[in-house]
Amino acid sequence: MDGAAAAARAGLARSLDAIRAGTPLVHNITNIVVANSTANALLALGASPAMAESTDEVEELVPAAGALVINLGTISATWAAAMRLAACRAHAVGVPWVLDPVAVGVLAYRSRVAADLLRHRPAAIRGNASEILSLAGMAGAGRGVDSTAQSADAVDAARWLAGEIGAVVAVTGAVDYVTDGAAVIEVHNGHPLMPRVTGMGCTATAIVGAFLAVERDRLAATAQGLCALGVAGEIAAERARGPGSLQVELLDALYALDAGILETRARLQ
Amino acid sequence: MDGAAAAARAGLARSLDAIRAGTPLVHNITNIVVANSTANALLALGASPAMAESTDEVEELVPAAGALVINLGTISATWAAAMRLAACRAHAVGVPWVLDPVAVGVLAYRSRVAADLLRHRPAAIRGNASEILSLAGMAGAGRGVDSTAQSADAVDAARWLAGEIGAVVAVTGAVDYVTDGAAVIEVHNGHPLMPRVTGMGCTATAIVGAFLAVERDRLAATAQGLCALGVAGEIAAERARGPGSLQVELLDALYALDAGILETRARLQ
Amino acid sequence: MDGAAAAARAGLARSLDAIRAGTPLVHNITNIVVANSTANALLALGASPAMAESTDEVEELVPAAGALVINLGTISATWAAAMRLAACRAHAVGVPWVLDPVAVGVLAYRSRVAADLLRHRPAAIRGNASEILSLAGMAGAGRGVDSTAQSADAVDAARWLAGEIGAVVAVTGAVDYVTDGAAVIEVHNGHPLMPRVTGMGCTATAIVGAFLAVERDRLAATAQGLCALGVAGEIAAERARGPGSLQVELLDALYALDAGILETRARLQ
Repeated sequence: MDGAAAAARAGLARSLDAIRAGTPLVHNITNIVVANSTANALLALGASPAMAESTDEVEELVPAAGALVINLGTISATWAAAMRLAACRAHAVGVPWVLDPVAVGVLAYRSRVAADLLRHRPAAIRGNASEILSLAGMAGAGRGVDSTAQSADAVDAARWLAGEIGAVVAVTGAVDYVTDGAAVIEVHNGHPLMPRVTGMGCTATAIVGAFLAVERDRLAATAQGLCALGVAGEIAAERARGPGSLQVELLDALYALDAGILETRARLQ
Repeated sequence: MDGAAAAARAGLARSLDAIRAGTPLVHNITNIVVANSTANALLALGASPAMAESTDEVEELVPAAGALVINLGTISATWAAAMRLAACRAHAVGVPWVLDPVAVGVLAYRSRVAADLLRHRPAAIRGNASEILSLAGMAGAGRGVDSTAQSADAVDAARWLAGEIGAVVAVTGAVDYVTDGAAVIEVHNGHPLMPRVTGMGCTATAIVGAFLAVERDRLAATAQGLCALGVAGEIAAERARGPGSLQVELLDALYALDAGILETRARLQ
Repeated sequence: MDGAAAAARAGLARSLDAIRAGTPLVHNITNIVVANSTANALLALGASPAMAESTDEVEELVPAAGALVINLGTISATWAAAMRLAACRAHAVGVPWVLDPVAVGVLAYRSRVAADLLRHRPAAIRGNASEILSLAGMAGAGRGVDSTAQSADAVDAARWLAGEIGAVVAVTGAVDYVTDGAAVIEVHNGHPLMPRVTGMGCTATAIVGAFLAVERDRLAATAQGLCALGVAGEIAAERARGPGSLQVELLDALYALDAGILETRARLQ
C-alpha cells in the first residue's frame, strides 16, 4: 500500500507532463449540467476534450481517443444506447474508460444501465460512498446500499468491487480512497468548498480519464488524477470567496499546476 | 397586501436557514443553457439540485424531492413527455412544483405544452410580463398577448391567472410582482445588469423551488426566493465589472447570504 | 483586398452600435457544451440569443430571427433534423445563417450532415483549418483533408469553397482569414490563451451571427465579428491569470467594447 502510493506520487509530475506534451483526446459522454465545466477542466489541465454522444458517432470516435469517460448524470434511453456502444467499443479496442455512476442506487433505471456497463470492463470507476456501495451491491451477492454509510464500509465495498470487476475503484469524499482490490491509496488533497460547485465529482472523473490516457498503471493514474484536482482545488479555495470564484480559480489553478506545486502539496498515502 | 409582504419578510431568514439545515432536494427538468448555472445557484444557496429529465426516471425522483422545477427553455417532444409525467406525479404526491414558461406566447408548441402542464396544478409560476400575459390568455377567455405590455397589465393578468389556476404567479422585471390572486407582494430588489447574464429568470425560478421546499405559505415562499436572488444580485453588481464577473459574484453572494444581509436589504412591499 | 478590409474596419463600430440598438434575435441550434457560454457572449455583446432546437419549433422561430447559427458540436439524428429544417427555412425566408462545422472531417456522420446543410446556402461558414479543408473536400473534386494542414492551404480551400457555395468562409486560428472567394481579409486580433477555453470557436461563430443580423455586407460582417471577439479576448487576456478568469473577463470585455476600443485595437488587413 505504501509502495503503491509512493509510486503514484513519484509519477505524478511525469503524468502531468505527458498530458501537456501529448494533449490526449478524452472522449466524454456526459451530461447537460457539466459538459461545459468538465471540458474546461480538461483543457485547463492540458488535455483535449471531445464531447460526442450519438450512436451515429461514438464507434468512430472511441478508437481515436486516449480515454473514454462515461457519466450517467442526465441519462436517458438515447444516451444510454450511446454509452453501451461506446463502452463496448472501448473494451474491444483497448481504450481505457472510466465510469461515473452519478446517483446510482437512487434511481433504478440508471442503476440497471450501470450494471450493464460494468460488463464492458471499465479501467476505473469513481463515485461517492453511496454510489460505490450501490454498485458493489449490484455486482455481488446482496451487499446493502446504505445512504448513511461510513467511509470504512465504502472502502471495503470498493476493494470488493475492484476485485470483482477488475477495475480501479475510487471513493471520493473528504478523503479519497483508490483501490485495485489489493492496495488502497488515500488522497488527502481537496477542500470542503469544492462540493458546493456542481459537478466537481464529474470533473474528477474526467481528469482521471486524462491521466488514464497517459499512465498505464491504472491505480497510479486514478490516484494522480484525484490528487491533481485536489491540489488545484486547495489553491483555488485559498483565493476564492465562495463557490462562484472557486470555479474560476480552479481552472486557473489547473492551468498553472506544475511539478513544484505537486511536489509541495500532493498528499498520497 | 401589507400583511402578506410583512409576513414574507418576517419569514425570509427562517426560510434561508431551513434550506441550509435541510438541504432540500430540488428536482429540475430544465434546459441545456442553464442546467449548470441553476445547479450552481441552488448549491450556493444551500439546496441540493438534481437534474433528471428522462421519462425513465422522473416518476421515481419526484416523490423524493422537496420541490420540482419545470423550465421550458429548450423543450422538445422528449423533454415535454418527461415534464408532463413529472408534473402529474408531483401533483399526485403533493410535491410543490414551479413552472418557468420560457418564451410561451412566442412559440406555439411550448405554449400548448404549458397549457397542458397547468392542469397539474403548479404551486407557482414565474415568468416575465409577456409570458404571464400569454399564459393568462391561454388559460382564460381571450386575453390578448402583447409584447409591448405594460407591467400594470401583467399584474392584472397575473392576479387573474393565479385565481384561475390556484397558483402563486410571479411577474419578474425591474420590480417583481407576486400574487396568489388576492394579495400582491412587490419585490424591489435586483439590479439592471442581471438580465445580461443568460438564464437569470431560470435561476429565479429554481431558487423559488428551494423556498417552496421549506415554506408552506407559497405566496411568501415565492416572494422570498425572488427577494433572496435580488439581494444577492445587488451585492454582486456592486462588485462586478460586467456580466461575466456578475455571474461569479452572484454565486459567492448567494453563498454568503445571511439574516443580517437580508434584514438590511430586503425590499418587500 | 485592402478595400474589403478597410470597409470592414470602417463599419465595425457602426455594426456594434446597430447590435446594441436593435438587440437582434440570434437563433442558435448549438450543443450542450457551449449553449450557456455562447448565450452569455451574445448577451454581453448586446444581442438577444434564443436557443431552440426542436423540429416542433425551429420553423416558427427562424423567420423571427435576425440570424441563425447552426453548430454541429454534439450532433445527433434528432438535432440534425432540426438543423436541416432550420437551415432550409432560413434560406427560404432570407434569414442569414452561419455554419460551425465542429469536427467535420473527423467524424463521418456529421460530415454528411454538413454536406447536406451546405445546400441551404449559408451566409457564412466559420471553422478551423482542418474543418474548412474537409468541407472543401466534400464540396468539390477530391481535395484532401489533412490534419497537419498549413494555413496557406486552408486559405486556398476557403477561397475555393466560398466561390463554390456562394458563402463567406472564415478560417480561424492565430490569424483569421475571411474570404468571399475573391477578397481575403485577415484578422490579427486574439490571444493564444483563448483556445484554452472550451467553445471559443463556437463563440466566434455565434458573434458572427450577431453581426450578420445587422450588416448586409457579409464579408465585412464576418470579419467584424471575429475582430470584435479577438479584441475582447486580448483585453481579457491582459487581465486573466488562466483560462478560468479569461472566460469571465471575456464577457466583461465584450460588454465594455466601444468605438474607441475598436478604433485602437482592431487589426484588419
